Amino acid sequence: MSKYCFGVDVGGTTVKLGLFNEDGDLLEKWEIPTVTKDGGKQILPDIAQSILKVMEERGMQREEVEGVGIGVPGPVDGGGTVHGAVNLGWGTFSIKQELQTMLNMPVEAGNDANVAALGEVWQGGARGYKDVVMVTLGTGVGGGIVMEGSILPGSVGAAGEIGHFHVNDEEKEACNCGNHGCLEQYVSATGVVRLAKERLADEGTQSILRGTQVTAKDVWDAVKKGDLLALEVAEDFGRYLGTALACVACVVNPEVFVIGGGVSKAGNILIDYIQKNFQKNTFVGCRGALFTLAQLGNDAGIYGAAKMVLG
Amino acid sequence: MSKYCFGVDVGGTTVKLGLFNEDGDLLEKWEIPTVTKDGGKQILPDIAQSILKVMEERGMQREEVEGVGIGVPGPVDGGGTVHGAVNLGWGTFSIKQELQTMLNMPVEAGNDANVAALGEVWQGGARGYKDVVMVTLGTGVGGGIVMEGSILPGSVGAAGEIGHFHVNDEEKEACNCGNHGCLEQYVSATGVVRLAKERLADEGTQSILRGTQVTAKDVWDAVKKGDLLALEVAEDFGRYLGTALACVACVVNPEVFVIGGGVSKAGNILIDYIQKNFQKNTFVGCRGALFTLAQLGNDAGIYGAAKMVLG
Repeated sequence: MSKYCFGVDVGGTTVKLGLFNEDGDLLEKWEIPTVTKDGGKQILPDIAQSILKVMEERGMQREEVEGVGIGVPGPVDGGGTVHGAVNLGWGTFSIKQELQTMLNMPVEAGNDANVAALGEVWQGGARGYKDVVMVTLGTGVGGGIVMEGSILPGSVGAAGEIGHFHVNDEEKEACNCGNHGCLEQYVSATGVVRLAKERLADEGTQSILRGTQVTAKDVWDAVKKGDLLALEVAEDFGRYLGTALACVACVVNPEVFVIGGGVSKAGNILIDYIQKNFQKNTFVGCRGALFTLAQLGNDAGIYGAAKMVLG
Repeated sequence: MSKYCFGVDVGGTTVKLGLFNEDGDLLEKWEIPTVTKDGGKQILPDIAQSILKVMEERGMQREEVEGVGIGVPGPVDGGGTVHGAVNLGWGTFSIKQELQTMLNMPVEAGNDANVAALGEVWQGGARGYKDVVMVTLGTGVGGGIVMEGSILPGSVGAAGEIGHFHVNDEEKEACNCGNHGCLEQYVSATGVVRLAKERLADEGTQSILRGTQVTAKDVWDAVKKGDLLALEVAEDFGRYLGTALACVACVVNPEVFVIGGGVSKAGNILIDYIQKNFQKNTFVGCRGALFTLAQLGNDAGIYGAAKMVLG
């Protein structure tokens, strides 16, 4: 019987790898650099080689390994085909087939945000639930959806792109995606800082943030201290994110929302601001959704990737 | 081998029933009244009796019937339990189990809007697609989601409640659901009339709608004639619905949106107004979604119900 599986999380600069047993224990984790030159053609061979090396070091047989799951920063459809990954230099091809051929073992592939959501469902903040939406508030805003225990990929792997919810008709600045008024422009780490700096531009407003560098952490620390300008930012944050998630709930009706990413380190205070607007604006049948904080941090991706192959 | 199946669509005043063969041909359809007195306890026995009578008349054996699918106007989870159906007087119970016991054959149950979506996927406007969102623009706005060929019910059967997307922070009037600013308040038949009447209240505005009863059909007919007031209503309609569907696409990334219900009889002109705003506001990876009109009309429910048991 199989005893192990590997989870791989491909980022723009490093690839995280993890060796798990079938109970979900992380036995070993390590990283290798992401070599993006030449259209990223070295990335999968590097991963395959690194996995085979660990297997050799541990004297593991192929039959002992259930397979390899891999999450990548781009849309991946239900069949394991990536539809472009700009940060890696990748176009459209079947990750599942290529890596399977290199390793001669089963491979499952998914979008990194979707895979992280599955990780949190398996061993993190959403353990015990099967219909889950995860929102990752980092430099950008990622989203992942798990329905009935499996990743919902969408037709071309673009399901869960909650960061690009249109939430503001009046926005003048463009989002990284090219649209105007995306959720990401207000509730990512960058977005929170932007909301604060817009208010600081009015020199009449007092704030403990004035004269500092201003990070998202600074803003939430100031919220906790009762700083009036920061409290206004928190209200805006809650209105944008709470209302967007109210709409997400009308679409997929999850049991729980998991909030992750750097901004989520501010803790449960985030959830208070989100819930206020969520409860007001979501459909009555969807109001029972719970909110929880992610628990796996940067390891969510390798956990979720491993879970993909365990099924 | 089984040769037949039944599809049942329970409405507030009548129950529609259909007998299908496995190829999806509708062999016979009929209606019975919905008896809602005493908490609607007579509804399922009436349906069972009606099906057994038709089987007897046709000399059909139980082994020849694959099963019965049923759609109801309330949230139904993936296990066939309805979580209340106000118009029928129903609370929470397993439709699947109760009807199975009465008929001694397999039963599958779903929410009526989700079931209609499955009908359009099987034999209607979305034939050949597997990731589909249907929006029904009637007195209210219903929504149904089919992913990888199966209904997406959500945790308590409230997935696809697109009519209650929050789209306007400024709304003073309450939606039927109790919230303020739901999509349904602007793009249902009632909503379109309301948008027109708000503009007609300004007596300075000329319009061929002035002095008439004003139905949603009148408004779209006036749009086709180039009536300036009606054109403004169409712009608002497209902005609300196109932007909401742009967000729906970021969540579930469908291949196609099917537009149904009475308002959809206005035809492809609707899609033009929707697409303009959809393309502007959805995530780049979701822009390939197609828009099509529903084809099965009021029969979508019995088609989808039948398809549920065929799997």
